[in-house]
Amino acid sequence: MSNRYVERIESIRDMMRERGWDAVILTGGDPHASEYPAARWKQVEWVSGFTGEAGDLVITQDHAGLWTDTRYFIQAVSQLAGTGVQLHKLRIPEAVPIPEWLSAWPFTEASAPDWLRIAVDGLCFGTQSARQLEAAFGDRPMEIVSVPDLLAPLWTGRPPVPATPVLTLGDELVGESREQKLSRLRKFLLREGCDAIFLSALDEIAWLLNVRGADVDYNPVVLSYLMVTLDGAEWYVRKDPPLTDEETVDSFYELNADGIRIRDYSDWETDLSGSGDLDGLDRIYVDPATLGLHLGGRLSANGLGASILEGPSPIPLWKALKNPVEIDGMPDAHLEDGLAMEQFLFWLEKAVTTGREITEWDASEYLDECRGRIAGYRGNSSETFSAYGENAALPHYVTPREGSALLRPSGLYLVDSGGQYLFGTTDITRTIPLGPCSELEKEDYTRVLKGHLALAMAIFPRGTAGCQLDALARTALWQARRNFGHGTGHGVGFFLCVHEGPQDIRQNFNPQPILPGMITSDEPGIYREGLHGVRHENLLLCREDAPNEFGRWLSFETLTLCHFDTSILIPGILDREETDFLNTYNERVFRTLSPRLPSDVAAWLRRKTLPV
Amino acid sequence: MSNRYVERIESIRDMMRERGWDAVILTGGDPHASEYPAARWKQVEWVSGFTGEAGDLVITQDHAGLWTDTRYFIQAVSQLAGTGVQLHKLRIPEAVPIPEWLSAWPFTEASAPDWLRIAVDGLCFGTQSARQLEAAFGDRPMEIVSVPDLLAPLWTGRPPVPATPVLTLGDELVGESREQKLSRLRKFLLREGCDAIFLSALDEIAWLLNVRGADVDYNPVVLSYLMVTLDGAEWYVRKDPPLTDEETVDSFYELNADGIRIRDYSDWETDLSGSGDLDGLDRIYVDPATLGLHLGGRLSANGLGASILEGPSPIPLWKALKNPVEIDGMPDAHLEDGLAMEQFLFWLEKAVTTGREITEWDASEYLDECRGRIAGYRGNSSETFSAYGENAALPHYVTPREGSALLRPSGLYLVDSGGQYLFGTTDITRTIPLGPCSELEKEDYTRVLKGHLALAMAIFPRGTAGCQLDALARTALWQARRNFGHGTGHGVGFFLCVHEGPQDIRQNFNPQPILPGMITSDEPGIYREGLHGVRHENLLLCREDAPNEFGRWLSFETLTLCHFDTSILIPGILDREETDFLNTYNERVFRTLSPRLPSDVAAWLRRKTLPV
Repeated sequence: MSNRYVERIESIRDMMRERGWDAVILTGGDPHASEYPAARWKQVEWVSGFTGEAGDLVITQDHAGLWTDTRYFIQAVSQLAGTGVQLHKLRIPEAVPIPEWLSAWPFTEASAPDWLRIAVDGLCFGTQSARQLEAAFGDRPMEIVSVPDLLAPLWTGRPPVPATPVLTLGDELVGESREQKLSRLRKFLLREGCDAIFLSALDEIAWLLNVRGADVDYNPVVLSYLMVTLDGAEWYVRKDPPLTDEETVDSFYELNADGIRIRDYSDWETDLSGSGDLDGLDRIYVDPATLGLHLGGRLSANGLGASILEGPSPIPLWKALKNPVEIDGMPDAHLEDGLAMEQFLFWLEKAVTTGREITEWDASEYLDECRGRIAGYRGNSSETFSAYGENAALPHYVTPREGSALLRPSGLYLVDSGGQYLFGTTDITRTIPLGPCSELEKEDYTRVLKGHLALAMAIFPRGTAGCQLDALARTALWQARRNFGHGTGHGVGFFLCVHEGPQDIRQNFNPQPILPGMITSDEPGIYREGLHGVRHENLLLCREDAPNEFGRWLSFETLTLCHFDTSILIPGILDREETDFLNTYNERVFRTLSPRLPSDVAAWLRRKTLPV
Repeated sequence: MSNRYVERIESIRDMMRERGWDAVILTGGDPHASEYPAARWKQVEWVSGFTGEAGDLVITQDHAGLWTDTRYFIQAVSQLAGTGVQLHKLRIPEAVPIPEWLSAWPFTEASAPDWLRIAVDGLCFGTQSARQLEAAFGDRPMEIVSVPDLLAPLWTGRPPVPATPVLTLGDELVGESREQKLSRLRKFLLREGCDAIFLSALDEIAWLLNVRGADVDYNPVVLSYLMVTLDGAEWYVRKDPPLTDEETVDSFYELNADGIRIRDYSDWETDLSGSGDLDGLDRIYVDPATLGLHLGGRLSANGLGASILEGPSPIPLWKALKNPVEIDGMPDAHLEDGLAMEQFLFWLEKAVTTGREITEWDASEYLDECRGRIAGYRGNSSETFSAYGENAALPHYVTPREGSALLRPSGLYLVDSGGQYLFGTTDITRTIPLGPCSELEKEDYTRVLKGHLALAMAIFPRGTAGCQLDALARTALWQARRNFGHGTGHGVGFFLCVHEGPQDIRQNFNPQPILPGMITSDEPGIYREGLHGVRHENLLLCREDAPNEFGRWLSFETLTLCHFDTSILIPGILDREETDFLNTYNERVFRTLSPRLPSDVAAWLRRKTLPV
């Protein structure tokens, strides 16, 4: 069964010998530095069978290795069995990352090359990864061979570049027209002394042009590149002619009327060479963090005579600071999402307590059904994590369609999910006691909730960064010598990626302050292998409070609307303020949702939200 | 009265014209990057009359300016009146620091020099400051003229380089011999490919050689430089011959026997020129953070043929990680210091309640008297901050000897002080209700104490840095939209500087983790102009806890032994754990100290430490 992978690795080795490459690196990314790649770019999976979200492959003549982190060790061992690919562990103390591993190549051995040639897929391999690789080698002789679509000669039946319908969002939904956004960007370019910017990041392009698509799972983006100049914009997007879907035709027409020229996905290459439609550019701004190596090379050696200025894109911060219309839309999204969640939770409790045989998969399907009834629903914002008992302790558990665990009337069930709506994006995690729970389950549940509430209730001075708030969500766990290994919060887009920057709430030193208008998740957890997992997640909107003699103050408004179960809380762990905050929240959930819930669900929710 | 300063500035301008300097920068520092300079290097004070701890002067022909931060604005305005020196404010949003101010020199004006010559005292001006200055100028034409002892021709009656007795500390006090420490340092040099290190920082030298002095106020250090080679060490120290004090003679004899050659304070200059006693060095390690510009120049252009490797000194971290003997000594220091503090507080309460007329100064004097009775006391670790009522809101209030405020039986009195002992260093702040207090005073007192306790009680995973813990001490204030503008905690030396690195607990992103063996202060506060100030400070020793499935755990042991007054706590603000922790602490203070206190003080302390 795994012979397929052995064969593929051998065919790569044949190609390496033919072309004189000593090593090949294949990454899990796409040409746009996306969080999830479309099927076309799942090169690591095609070569090795490994399906984890983070994993890079290195192949030499006598070694094939997969580098991944703690989250995927178990999965990697199982999926790589029989392929000959060895697991290299990252995020452990003795970790040797790829650049260090390759740069330790024994140049001194007689058989070793005196000049190491490392081939990469130049489209997907990032400019910054290339720099890290070069830095690790220092003076040792090495060359990175950038090959666009390196696997093309071997991968038959490879999925094409996705081309789903393109829709445009009106100003009444997004609050700022593309003209206004482009004008902001052009002012930025003038300040930087540039007359163009080249964008690769799909959510930056989607935000800027007020377009959405479905080219990447869960991320409503359109596969494309964008060159914005001071008086125009070239959008390189693959939509095969003839265009058969009305929506895309309308969108392209609208964009064209706004001065955005629609070009073919690969036209950037001709344009940058100087033989295409672009010229007269002096200085192009690019963000190396989202730039593929091949593209970066074409930009540096462009045939337009333009110089390059590297710097961080201003768009992530603009995108993170939601405008008033986006801020008004998000509560609608959370209201609709909350109604779906409460109907799901009502169904779940009834099913489990009445002895119906439902599985993790059934639950996940029913939740999709509830969200699917919402007008404006455009799919989920992430893969639904639906896990019962010990499965919930596996950080990247994927609920199998067949044979997933049966939900029994005891212990904890964890569901992490979210929806994409035309008027916002949601992300919510609830941990549900399905029946009697152990004392440890109860204490973990209570302490994680205490941490969640401490962050949700936080008031903090302007200028505070997420890493300075992270401890608030952890103290309740730390004091009992418990912890969790993931971040506490990530930025959330507006009908865009459910994970976005530049802010986050985690232990890493990200200096970006949390600012008014940012939406960030609050999701502490705890995971006990073989026992259970707990996570509580709401989305928080940062608001400005009244200033006083001590400065300017910020706080959070909880956007998510879905009650927290209070039945297994251990008394005495939450303090008075936390208990009040929880009761007020549950009461707000009831008052906001109950008028639109069926009467049996509303009556059930009344009982669920009585104060503790 | 201020004519003196006008004259001095004019005499500097005369010198500038003679020598062709366009600007002179004078900093408040000494040649060793010390926190406090000895009197000889209080150049800013001599020129301008400004006595604040942070302040730099720039003099040109038509401008004289003092750059200082928010803490000293009021003081600067008052002390600079009549001198013609203008205040330039730092740490405000529109601040223009010296490098930016000077680099904005109008080169385009007809009268402007085409090549700006900026003179600095090359001994005291730091290498890194010079680099910042150069960076600000970029391509604009500028030259830094490094003049050792720039003010020497003008400053008659200038204090000499201090030369107090040198004492050595035995291994039974410090736990690691100088041979062991030198051996650690030499191994470090070998790893770095160096055969020597040049040290300027006085506390690094004192720690390494196990020597102490009294050359700088509050810092028990010896003014000196040190060159450590792989097989020897040259200690450049000013102790005028003939040596008349027995202690110094004994110390020098002991050091010499250990292979440390005693040299004159200025001999480093001849040695580095190659005409002295050093030769055969290939590569000298230096830390630019503590290196004077003149010395840096002499090192770079040394006549020994040695190259220079710049990097951070390893000594601050070694020094911060207290060894078992130091850890054993610190509780003794805190026991003795606690006995002095409790006797002082007993006296204070009695004096105030019986209507004796005592002032802030009297209180400070009496506290010194209590500490002075301790065997092994070597002076204070910082200037005692003794402030009543609204004076306690002034962050750098200096209690005047004459006319300081009378302590009345109402409101809050704040005392921040500490002692240097042969067996440790202390630093403690108590805020004392002298009688009836306002509700605001009570709430501020309670919330600051809640913040202090939250940090003191913290349990946290290994790897956590101070900036990740800082919020714990602030949350109780933030939730009431209150804050304080200083750091929460600083490292503390062992019978050394009361402020040391590399760790701290503050909002700045200092990535240094808090590690077992480090001693750090915990001193949140709140300051209300015109009303009152509150600060509660204990020293915390970081200890390793038992590891578990979630990782390795650290926590704090409170070293300071002196009760917290509970009489004005507002009920309901401290939670159960905080109240328990406070009661346990006060009980420990009583049990530890009472056997050694006079019976009336012990009986009083019993009442003061009853549980709340």
